[in-house]
Amino acid sequence: MQFEDRLTETARRIEGELQRLLSGEKVAEAPVQLVQAMRHAVLGGGKRLRPFLVLESAALFDVPTDRALPAALAVELIHGYSLVHDDLPAMDNDTMRRGRPTVWTEYNEWTAILAGDALQALAFEFLADCASGLPPAVSVALTVELSRASGVNGMVGGQALDLEADKLGRPENPDAGHVSRLQAMKTGALIRFSCEAGAIIATADPTTRTALSEFGRHLGYAFQIADDLLDAEGDEQRVGKALAKDAAAGKATLVSLLGLEAAKAELRNTVENAKAALLPFGAKAKTLVSAAEFVAYRDN
Amino acid sequence: MQFEDRLTETARRIEGELQRLLSGEKVAEAPVQLVQAMRHAVLGGGKRLRPFLVLESAALFDVPTDRALPAALAVELIHGYSLVHDDLPAMDNDTMRRGRPTVWTEYNEWTAILAGDALQALAFEFLADCASGLPPAVSVALTVELSRASGVNGMVGGQALDLEADKLGRPENPDAGHVSRLQAMKTGALIRFSCEAGAIIATADPTTRTALSEFGRHLGYAFQIADDLLDAEGDEQRVGKALAKDAAAGKATLVSLLGLEAAKAELRNTVENAKAALLPFGAKAKTLVSAAEFVAYRDN
Repeated sequence: MQFEDRLTETARRIEGELQRLLSGEKVAEAPVQLVQAMRHAVLGGGKRLRPFLVLESAALFDVPTDRALPAALAVELIHGYSLVHDDLPAMDNDTMRRGRPTVWTEYNEWTAILAGDALQALAFEFLADCASGLPPAVSVALTVELSRASGVNGMVGGQALDLEADKLGRPENPDAGHVSRLQAMKTGALIRFSCEAGAIIATADPTTRTALSEFGRHLGYAFQIADDLLDAEGDEQRVGKALAKDAAAGKATLVSLLGLEAAKAELRNTVENAKAALLPFGAKAKTLVSAAEFVAYRDN
Repeated sequence: MQFEDRLTETARRIEGELQRLLSGEKVAEAPVQLVQAMRHAVLGGGKRLRPFLVLESAALFDVPTDRALPAALAVELIHGYSLVHDDLPAMDNDTMRRGRPTVWTEYNEWTAILAGDALQALAFEFLADCASGLPPAVSVALTVELSRASGVNGMVGGQALDLEADKLGRPENPDAGHVSRLQAMKTGALIRFSCEAGAIIATADPTTRTALSEFGRHLGYAFQIADDLLDAEGDEQRVGKALAKDAAAGKATLVSLLGLEAAKAELRNTVENAKAALLPFGAKAKTLVSAAEFVAYRDN
């Protein structure tokens, strides 16, 4: 199967599982509008890249998909909650996402805040739920890593640094080191978790786990350079959102700081680093290699 | 030691542990203002009732305090994050709490949203962190229960119902059943978790665990009736916040729906139910019995 077909197939599977999760017994007694907002937040599209990385990193170890699903869904729930909160008027003040009104626009601000909060709790519930069949020690290890990746030293911390730059002009002259650290936290940490998750689920040895974590680190960096390049050069029709926002906002990005050609060279270099981290897995890592190229050279 | 001294001593211990947690290596590299906001949110007072209940329910089984601390701190972090979010302009729009500016007032809205999000992640990290010495199966069971108690069917769901009533006037004529369900979710679920946590940590048999969970359910209900009575009849100086807010807002409470005398009778009855749930523990449950009386008949 071609890479993009495989990605599409996984996206369909994840959509179905989230649909089931958010209309099943876990939410049957819960406030109706809150659940609708949670469904609005996480259903209806997206590439599902993070769950895909969880499932594909687990597949390296021949872990059955069912066993990797709780981590795949948990990371997507965390990603979904972060988008709902990031879109709020007090943060990025976005009214549209994936061609639909954002949660706070469709409902209201308090519903969006609470839907995000509930999605975060649900992610950790799902990871710990015994029904998943994960051994407790694996579940605990995943919980530790996911909570770190999403907390003050990860996703939330990165969003805080991003808003400090946007709204408070701090630091005054961000350099590429600051921007890449910020992005490694804001988007990189969850991508890195997703790649490492397979090794955790398979209880792989520390060296192997580190290799996947390194792959995830490079992949997250590639993701961000590619995002900045798309913002600078992409086709709005294909990307499906307004572009050149960064330049218009005078925002320091890897492209603005390094220059277009140097950013492209950095991206190629990063993809090579990502592939090098996968060498120990040989031909089995074919799909993850394709994932790195897809992430780096996508046009949307 | 008298009950109130014991409560004060535990509050001091919890304050110290949270202080250590929020100035230690877990946050050393994190964005400074975000960490300050998290500290503002959870340090500097509060009765620390939930951690106290965790430690005292664990003490029933002679579980050492150190072993019960992760759950005690985790529930307080969840409680703390919920207050930060509840105070936001889009929710209760409160500017003061415990005699100090609320987090969004002291910093700004986005910092408050992110500080709450990061506190939630930290709660689950702390519960799963192997350094706590909890066996993985216990850690997983605590994570499941805490995530359920704080999510869409618990705390967050209750806050959603409360705001639906306040802001949308839904349902049009709430009855006592609706109000008590809302409160059982909004404040009851975390209190119930706190009481059950000791049994989970001690890997007690299901009957024993249910007894503590039932105690927690009655205690949470008593807490809420007492809160409504304080709002109706309390001394503002002692309580430390504006009272008669519910009546002024035309809010349906257990007092407004049942009447003052019936609410007091319901409270006495609920305290007896709470005590009855503790009968299997005999004299060992003395402190928890006192806790029920304290919660029900406190003047602040």
